[in-house]
Amino acid sequence: MLAESAYGKSSIRLVQVTRRGTQHSLRDLTVAIRFEGEYAGSYTDGDNSDVLPTDTMKNTVYALAADQTLADPEPFGIRLAEHFLKRNPCLKAVRIDLTEHPWQPITVGGRNHGQSFLRRGPETRTATVQGGRDRIKVGAGISDLMILKSSGSAFAGFPRDEYTTLPETHDRLFATSMTATWQYADVETDFGPRWHAVRQTLLETFAEHDSQSVQHTLYAMGQTVLDAASDVIAIRLVMPNKHHFPIDLTKFGKENRNEIFVATDEPYGLIEATLTR
Amino acid sequence: MLAESAYGKSSIRLVQVTRRGTQHSLRDLTVAIRFEGEYAGSYTDGDNSDVLPTDTMKNTVYALAADQTLADPEPFGIRLAEHFLKRNPCLKAVRIDLTEHPWQPITVGGRNHGQSFLRRGPETRTATVQGGRDRIKVGAGISDLMILKSSGSAFAGFPRDEYTTLPETHDRLFATSMTATWQYADVETDFGPRWHAVRQTLLETFAEHDSQSVQHTLYAMGQTVLDAASDVIAIRLVMPNKHHFPIDLTKFGKENRNEIFVATDEPYGLIEATLTR
Amino acid sequence: MLAESAYGKSSIRLVQVTRRGTQHSLRDLTVAIRFEGEYAGSYTDGDNSDVLPTDTMKNTVYALAADQTLADPEPFGIRLAEHFLKRNPCLKAVRIDLTEHPWQPITVGGRNHGQSFLRRGPETRTATVQGGRDRIKVGAGISDLMILKSSGSAFAGFPRDEYTTLPETHDRLFATSMTATWQYADVETDFGPRWHAVRQTLLETFAEHDSQSVQHTLYAMGQTVLDAASDVIAIRLVMPNKHHFPIDLTKFGKENRNEIFVATDEPYGLIEATLTR
Amino acid sequence: MLAESAYGKSSIRLVQVTRRGTQHSLRDLTVAIRFEGEYAGSYTDGDNSDVLPTDTMKNTVYALAADQTLADPEPFGIRLAEHFLKRNPCLKAVRIDLTEHPWQPITVGGRNHGQSFLRRGPETRTATVQGGRDRIKVGAGISDLMILKSSGSAFAGFPRDEYTTLPETHDRLFATSMTATWQYADVETDFGPRWHAVRQTLLETFAEHDSQSVQHTLYAMGQTVLDAASDVIAIRLVMPNKHHFPIDLTKFGKENRNEIFVATDEPYGLIEATLTR
Repeated sequence: MLAESAYGKSSIRLVQVTRRGTQHSLRDLTVAIRFEGEYAGSYTDGDNSDVLPTDTMKNTVYALAADQTLADPEPFGIRLAEHFLKRNPCLKAVRIDLTEHPWQPITVGGRNHGQSFLRRGPETRTATVQGGRDRIKVGAGISDLMILKSSGSAFAGFPRDEYTTLPETHDRLFATSMTATWQYADVETDFGPRWHAVRQTLLETFAEHDSQSVQHTLYAMGQTVLDAASDVIAIRLVMPNKHHFPIDLTKFGKENRNEIFVATDEPYGLIEATLTR
Repeated sequence: MLAESAYGKSSIRLVQVTRRGTQHSLRDLTVAIRFEGEYAGSYTDGDNSDVLPTDTMKNTVYALAADQTLADPEPFGIRLAEHFLKRNPCLKAVRIDLTEHPWQPITVGGRNHGQSFLRRGPETRTATVQGGRDRIKVGAGISDLMILKSSGSAFAGFPRDEYTTLPETHDRLFATSMTATWQYADVETDFGPRWHAVRQTLLETFAEHDSQSVQHTLYAMGQTVLDAASDVIAIRLVMPNKHHFPIDLTKFGKENRNEIFVATDEPYGLIEATLTR
Repeated sequence: MLAESAYGKSSIRLVQVTRRGTQHSLRDLTVAIRFEGEYAGSYTDGDNSDVLPTDTMKNTVYALAADQTLADPEPFGIRLAEHFLKRNPCLKAVRIDLTEHPWQPITVGGRNHGQSFLRRGPETRTATVQGGRDRIKVGAGISDLMILKSSGSAFAGFPRDEYTTLPETHDRLFATSMTATWQYADVETDFGPRWHAVRQTLLETFAEHDSQSVQHTLYAMGQTVLDAASDVIAIRLVMPNKHHFPIDLTKFGKENRNEIFVATDEPYGLIEATLTR
Repeated sequence: MLAESAYGKSSIRLVQVTRRGTQHSLRDLTVAIRFEGEYAGSYTDGDNSDVLPTDTMKNTVYALAADQTLADPEPFGIRLAEHFLKRNPCLKAVRIDLTEHPWQPITVGGRNHGQSFLRRGPETRTATVQGGRDRIKVGAGISDLMILKSSGSAFAGFPRDEYTTLPETHDRLFATSMTATWQYADVETDFGPRWHAVRQTLLETFAEHDSQSVQHTLYAMGQTVLDAASDVIAIRLVMPNKHHFPIDLTKFGKENRNEIFVATDEPYGLIEATLTR
């Protein structure tokens, strides 16, 4: 029995240049499309009569991009979702994931050159549009926002057993590569300013929070977003704890005044939660 | 409101060498541990009194590995799940993911050297143990199994619209980097032979199937596993379509008799389904 | 015969936090150390009596970092090179490669928070110190600077043969992930401001150049640096051509006014050159 | 002054299927082409009149692949080098790098299915052809051969200073991801069997060597190849020391009888040498 199934196209790379005289703008997106619906026949009998080719999905992204300026990823995702729902009767739920790779203008002599750009990262802006037969839901997010705080982070008061060697700490480095995704109440909002506002709220709360753990700060960040942004109905945060361990310099006859750390990739703590109203 | 949350440790790297005279065996695992339970206080109030440190989780993996020979990953995952459930009253659901990186013996003069090994890949063997207060569920899987068939693969009979340019094909290259995960009915089985049997069934079905699409072959692979392995109650297959496009050699005055292809990474089709009994 | 050999330690991850009241600064470095010298005995006879362990190299990085504030990577590299040369009589040439991962302060209410940071990238700042018995040479660089220009880039007038299908273009997208490395005439300079000046020169030349090819712009960028920075004696630039191809929208009854592109990773052009005075 | 320069095309992905009835064979190559020559005018003046487009290089790979069965990468590299040298008078030195991604047949019922394949790795087979106006040189290699020995590896007798904390060991795990490249005396040899013979010699020496250090074993591996393969005139080995550290279980009241290790990626020792006759 086919309990669940989906198909689609991933990693569609789309770059749009918009030229207004000598001031160009640049949008760099990776798009993924995912169809769920009445496609059992293609699985069980090899019947492709309702299966829109994933190659056509890709072409559609480029064709529809030609009709509009991609100021924000969300409206383009909505446009794609509506297009596919209208055309494909077997399609019950379509998901469009958009990742925007940020570029900033290069300045020459202190002025925006207008036709050249510098990629910024590692963070990306994401958007997700989920379209069904009844309604469309729009979400947004940030991936790979690497942040670190050098004070205001403790981890203590935890239970100990015979395998516990971790010392309690009241002043540790706290670093994470945050991924946040949130849902908007409405399909129409001022997506660009909203995204920047949520991002700034997350950054400020991270900076100012008196952290007792990653969990504690994650919750504070989510809560502040829900408090500040009435149009956000839920937010999910995934925060790997990118451990930075202080080096034991006493072996070398020196003192480490909480200044010298080794950054590690493996293993890492993984903390995640979803907050709703 | 904290709608859902989890925390744990990922990418715990564990290598065990077992020495029986001059014949050593080697197990190379990456372990991830994920706790769900009554930990809301750590999020909302920074109360860590029930929060087993993820560092302790890591230590526990090494300490418990010292008590047993890791012949298969599944029993070790069960052991870890039971350990954590027993010790942590707030823990409601624990998930242990284990990835085994395969090594084969190096042969010298045609004979197994016994104390030296060669890594094989890219495929890995995976196991997942999900432990709750009532029961434990055990699953297994294969990740990144790259397979390709050079005949018996068609894609035709699909709908066309104004954005469709894909030609129908009755003899294309079909390549994928398969990820399969399946659930066992029982927590005790002969995990090693079962895993190898499912793997061989997947490979043989892939090879022999007269494919009308990725969906069609994915389903046949899952169905054959369910038919052949009565102890498997569900199987999930994720098969990205790693496109290989024939090169148009007519531009160079040559014919491409379906022999010369470009392998591409982006974009890719993504086909996934879960089959149950 | 041992024609050449080297050994060392790579990927030493070092993070230093410097606290001046509530204003912290953060340096995040990856360090690699490479020894060349009279170590043939370790290769041919397993004689380790002169082989400083690479683990000691790593420890030395942390120990010496504790003695100084790592404002720039170059002086720390010089310090490490001198240390190793002084201690190891068999060492004839030591190379220290330092990669700095940039972080910027997080602002709260428009003001620098002082104790929290945001990683910027993908570009990194690099430094290379090569120490011999006679002298020390210092170089610097930038890796993975992703830049794109949306005008002022042509590629035409090239030879054609029976395998040439590329159309001439007078207005293409030009994108690259630049790596630059340059050598300073002296071991003492104001490394931070010098690095930023070279970076800005590279960016401005890239933006303003009327490009006939990647080669043409690469050369202009190197030449401008040599013209502007009298203390730079050589510069090497490696510029992969990250192709962005315009999508043929005529198949969909639309026109592509040089606005819609697909970004590709494979294959890529690779252009490299070293300019000296 | 343009001290040195090169240009070319990298990451050209070529898959060739050869059909002999129901027995197919598969070759999967990544090709890189690098031109050096009298191309200064393209850099200094934007003069492209001698610059064969890298897109044409790519097309040439596909066009020439259509004329032959790619049994081994080396003859195809020679063919490409000769083609480019003949056509491009400004070309003084061309380098063709070929990486073969290995696939093995899938067996069904114990027999080779003939038309389906399983990717093996992570190791790859490499070949390098360097063509000049006077002669052509051919080399071969192996990349990313991950090997581990669980006995016969010591590291002791090394100098100690105040930053040395590493204990001496006479029984450690020795793991590396080896890259080897070697040069053949002649441009014609039986490349496939030669490659497999060198690979087996490297594996057997690694397995059997009584290792005093990575350097010591690296040298023995290279020396054995030169002894056994009279047509190999030089070999270069790069062997990162992928550290596996024994876990201190005494903290948990247990003994680690050299059985439980953590595998680490960072930092790593890096040992490299070239052996010639």
